[in-house]
Amino acid sequence: MNLIILTEADRTCEQIFELTDHRAIHIREVLRSSAGESVEVGLLNGPVGIASITEVTERGVALQVTQWREAPRLSYEVDLICAISRQKTMRKVLTVSAMMGVRSVHFVRANRPDKSYVASPVISEPGCLPYLMDGLGQGKFTRVPNISVHPLFRPFVEDQIPRLYPPGNHLTKLLADNSGEMDLGEALAIAEGREYLIAIGPEGGWVPFEIELLKSAGFRPLILGPWTLRVETAVTAALAQLELVAGKSRK
Amino acid sequence: MNLIILTEADRTCEQIFELTDHRAIHIREVLRSSAGESVEVGLLNGPVGIASITEVTERGVALQVTQWREAPRLSYEVDLICAISRQKTMRKVLTVSAMMGVRSVHFVRANRPDKSYVASPVISEPGCLPYLMDGLGQGKFTRVPNISVHPLFRPFVEDQIPRLYPPGNHLTKLLADNSGEMDLGEALAIAEGREYLIAIGPEGGWVPFEIELLKSAGFRPLILGPWTLRVETAVTAALAQLELVAGKSRK
Repeated sequence: MNLIILTEADRTCEQIFELTDHRAIHIREVLRSSAGESVEVGLLNGPVGIASITEVTERGVALQVTQWREAPRLSYEVDLICAISRQKTMRKVLTVSAMMGVRSVHFVRANRPDKSYVASPVISEPGCLPYLMDGLGQGKFTRVPNISVHPLFRPFVEDQIPRLYPPGNHLTKLLADNSGEMDLGEALAIAEGREYLIAIGPEGGWVPFEIELLKSAGFRPLILGPWTLRVETAVTAALAQLELVAGKSRK
Repeated sequence: MNLIILTEADRTCEQIFELTDHRAIHIREVLRSSAGESVEVGLLNGPVGIASITEVTERGVALQVTQWREAPRLSYEVDLICAISRQKTMRKVLTVSAMMGVRSVHFVRANRPDKSYVASPVISEPGCLPYLMDGLGQGKFTRVPNISVHPLFRPFVEDQIPRLYPPGNHLTKLLADNSGEMDLGEALAIAEGREYLIAIGPEGGWVPFEIELLKSAGFRPLILGPWTLRVETAVTAALAQLELVAGKSRK
């Protein structure tokens, strides 16, 4: 945990926050910090700052935030579409998305993974939060990615995407797929705007019907590299390459 | 497992291989394949191919390889230097390195991580193999990365690197560090050759002494992005960005 994520519920008065959960244990037992020392903090969906530890007891830790500043963020917006997969995979996707500054993750039911995964608690509202918080604390971001679940592939692509991303906002839609021929630099060569929506397939890939539907909805197929990656590794690879291209030439 | 990795020890005669371990269980219970069906295989440090399943029993699985072809590989060579870290982290670094086609990983003792990690079984000769095989089977590569352990940082950088990589072979040495100002594209703008050696810091980063020593040994500091990544995520991000730059402009 590189940043202790605070929430408004932890605030006891003005700049004082009290922690009694795993964050207190982390400060006490991993950081081994004591009263008077400082830690880096971030307010959920708010600024980051420096907090002075005012009290460490068996019961918890009290912090006084002494400086706030704007939280870091990417110089563009990136949303992901991920196939609903095994819980273990989705947990990692959640953590890495928060760690790398993703704005939204749309989990959509795809053909290859087991249909029952759609009911996984990890993509429910309370279930995803620990993994997102873990990612934010690691990546030093504070904005929680928005998580949504879409049980039907075709209506999601045909109806919901145009509603969520109205035409004209210069969204660039990308489809990471081993069948792609362009790399990410080539795929973005004609991109306008600062918003990206990247679809990452499940273990085994999207089926041809899904690829065709995404393509006809304007997704450009691209290849990340000569590897066959795990889902969460593909998410990291796509975000890393996007940062190199979109974060660079357009800063 | 996208590729069943075979070894010469599994060969019973000519193109027949018999498996009795977790690979047999994978074919029987995950792939649910039966006699007559085909699976993708790769011979450790050799070619990839298609094998026909000739027998599936409780005891094991017999395969007859019907086609061999050259295994895929990157269009350049990349080696990593990683700080010796927690076993959990090193396991993931091993898997991702094999999955993404890395040639060698040098684990070196660094200042920040606990000194005792140097004795971790996971970086010993037999200990690392399962994680490497897992990565190869996922990434569809067959060449096992070479793993070495260096308990002393300064002699490794000053003496062993020049011995392992003699001057004149156009090796590009990169140091992924949050203090870097160039991105990977900029860092490679003046690079010659097709060999890269990338140093990835431990949790918390390299200490200033280590950064200075690497810089004076010719490592160019670069920043992967605005994030603070876990070690294994930084490895993936660096390899993904390298592929975009080195795999692209120089194909």
